Amino acid sequence: MLEQMGMAAKAASYQLALLSSREKNRVLEKIADYLEAQTDDILRANEQDLADARANGLSEAMLDRLALNPARLQGIANDVRQVCQLADPVGQVIDGGLLDSGLRIERRRVPLGVIGVIYEARPNVTVDVASLCLKTGNAAILRGGKETWRTNAATVKVIQQALEECGLPAGAVQAIESPDRALVSEMLRLDKYIDMIIPRGGAGLHKLCREQSTIPVITGGIGVCHIFVDESAEIDPALKIIVNAKTQRPSTCNTVETLLVHQKIAAAFLPALSQQMAKSGVTLHAADNAMAQLKGGPANVVPVEAAQYDDEYLSLDLNVNVVSDLDEAIAHIRQHGTQHSDAILTRTLRNADRFINEVDSSAVYVNASTRFTDGGQFGLGAEVAVSTQKLHARGPMGLEALTTYKWIGFGDDMIRA
Amino acid sequence: MLEQMGMAAKAASYQLALLSSREKNRVLEKIADYLEAQTDDILRANEQDLADARANGLSEAMLDRLALNPARLQGIANDVRQVCQLADPVGQVIDGGLLDSGLRIERRRVPLGVIGVIYEARPNVTVDVASLCLKTGNAAILRGGKETWRTNAATVKVIQQALEECGLPAGAVQAIESPDRALVSEMLRLDKYIDMIIPRGGAGLHKLCREQSTIPVITGGIGVCHIFVDESAEIDPALKIIVNAKTQRPSTCNTVETLLVHQKIAAAFLPALSQQMAKSGVTLHAADNAMAQLKGGPANVVPVEAAQYDDEYLSLDLNVNVVSDLDEAIAHIRQHGTQHSDAILTRTLRNADRFINEVDSSAVYVNASTRFTDGGQFGLGAEVAVSTQKLHARGPMGLEALTTYKWIGFGDDMIRA
Repeated sequence: MLEQMGMAAKAASYQLALLSSREKNRVLEKIADYLEAQTDDILRANEQDLADARANGLSEAMLDRLALNPARLQGIANDVRQVCQLADPVGQVIDGGLLDSGLRIERRRVPLGVIGVIYEARPNVTVDVASLCLKTGNAAILRGGKETWRTNAATVKVIQQALEECGLPAGAVQAIESPDRALVSEMLRLDKYIDMIIPRGGAGLHKLCREQSTIPVITGGIGVCHIFVDESAEIDPALKIIVNAKTQRPSTCNTVETLLVHQKIAAAFLPALSQQMAKSGVTLHAADNAMAQLKGGPANVVPVEAAQYDDEYLSLDLNVNVVSDLDEAIAHIRQHGTQHSDAILTRTLRNADRFINEVDSSAVYVNASTRFTDGGQFGLGAEVAVSTQKLHARGPMGLEALTTYKWIGFGDDMIRA
Repeated sequence: MLEQMGMAAKAASYQLALLSSREKNRVLEKIADYLEAQTDDILRANEQDLADARANGLSEAMLDRLALNPARLQGIANDVRQVCQLADPVGQVIDGGLLDSGLRIERRRVPLGVIGVIYEARPNVTVDVASLCLKTGNAAILRGGKETWRTNAATVKVIQQALEECGLPAGAVQAIESPDRALVSEMLRLDKYIDMIIPRGGAGLHKLCREQSTIPVITGGIGVCHIFVDESAEIDPALKIIVNAKTQRPSTCNTVETLLVHQKIAAAFLPALSQQMAKSGVTLHAADNAMAQLKGGPANVVPVEAAQYDDEYLSLDLNVNVVSDLDEAIAHIRQHGTQHSDAILTRTLRNADRFINEVDSSAVYVNASTRFTDGGQFGLGAEVAVSTQKLHARGPMGLEALTTYKWIGFGDDMIRA
């Protein structure tokens, strides 16, 4: 079955690659229209998914993540229309020129081909990913969380109707509907048809993909992010940034998880931190070296466990560790970080430069919140994932990250000398 | 042992990333000097490798590939000095600007970190790869062919002496000296330390890496390249291009392996082809539809076997297949090609455009030889590999392909709204 889907996707990708931006936008507009027109069908499927999820004892928070309603669906349709507004990178000439030999070459941006996306039970991702793939002329094979399989199937049906209405094959966007996990492993070895795998989920999914996939995988989305409070930091603005980085949306991957505090500012800073974190409802997980100054304070404080330096909390919890200097802070980040987003708060130019140069993360910040690591914030318009690996795209991945390039050589009957 | 090497390489990579171009060139110059000064040691090691290889019954052609002599070693040293002349991409600001929020961001080019290279028994590759990695501030872990392990070890010793002389750790360039193949599998799972794997070898090695590696792999270097002779092609220039693409250096991956001939030109073209191929010493492997017009001719002709469309000959052999039109040619290339280099010979603008847009290869040519796919020819100065995958770099990989980028955000105490 997957082999069939792969073949259909590859065949569709050849057609999609030739579409103009106007033709691709026409499909996207139709998808948005159909999502609105067929709201009832999608909501009915979603209700069945929710009923099953409730019967299976999923938490209210989880149920809320799965649930669609007319307003949410309208939001999804609006997002598709937003994608129409984005500039299409396909066809762009990256560079080129006349070679010494006389051959004229150019590097032209082209779609990747077929993109496989494996994601959790978030019903908006289906449309989100499909629209970004279509905008860049790529076919997509989607494997969503099993808790929302009916919602995903209903959504993909709407997308396929829009595609066919525009004279395009339904194979351009397909979903694996079966909840069988073995199909994920099978999908990861479909290197004959799929050009790139994007896992959107937890560390376990990323590990599975890295280990099993014979297709290039974009790993990322796991953020053990750090803020280093340097000796020269100013306490009030530092606290504002920490509150923003920890509490604005704690469940996101660009949320700070560990605070590293220079020992020379610790005595002044930690009591102020405790005050602020008490107000913000954040529990501090303190290293021994920070505990003395924190334990009398108003914030909730517990001792940090070693393993907590290596995991995302994704909640109102924050590690606090006092370091002797910038070197120790950088060493800590190298050891425990996930190369996502890390920040230094400092007034010292040389330390800012050193942090930028020596911390090997997708995004490094000076006196700014780690929360900025986001396709929308970075002006990419939309993001399909956040990469923390070094090949292909790094950090927030916009439309350009869904393309590759080809070299084109124009000769007047040219041979290599 | 590999774990130790990985740790040393990662630690070295942090130092290398901070070097200026001048400092990196100083190391490269010293490597070139030492290669000249210690020619005797390297040649002695090479003689032992050759003696073993001869005892193991390797062919003369293979022995010639393994052999070093003073002139070849001088050539290798000169190549290192050439790398000094190349522009260093590290530190380059790719783009940047002021975001709506007021955050100033830039994307800055940085080294990848640690690069693992697995290659065949070619003694020049060790220095070649090491110098390109060092120039871009990357550490390298090298695993060369077992037939030249002594040569590689002697060469790496010279490189490490040069590194240490410049105050840099020997861990910057390390070689796995043991011929144990299990170490390759172990290396491919060292994702904690190695950022990218480049296999330089045959299809088997690439498959092994794709299947076993948990580190992103650059696959490529396998070229089943096609030339499509369109109805409107001119026969004389077409033959010149085919001779160049087939015979200039048949063992390379950008050599043409299959000729697709438009049926409307076949009657005029095939007899001329046979004449020319007879002169060039090329054996034609003809499809049934080409056999009638070829079998009376002067060239050596045999029937093509189906599997021969999918493999590189790397010799003076060429498949010939008559196709009914451009569509059939494109379909053939999609089915049998390796997305390396494919060319159309035509005088018809629309067909040239269609070929460029519809053939999904790293390099596509109009009226030019496939032999141009090469870092030197493309003006990249040197190439570390030719990629035929779509993530990261595609086609010839120069210095830029050994870098990634990081996002840097500069705030004046900025939080996300």
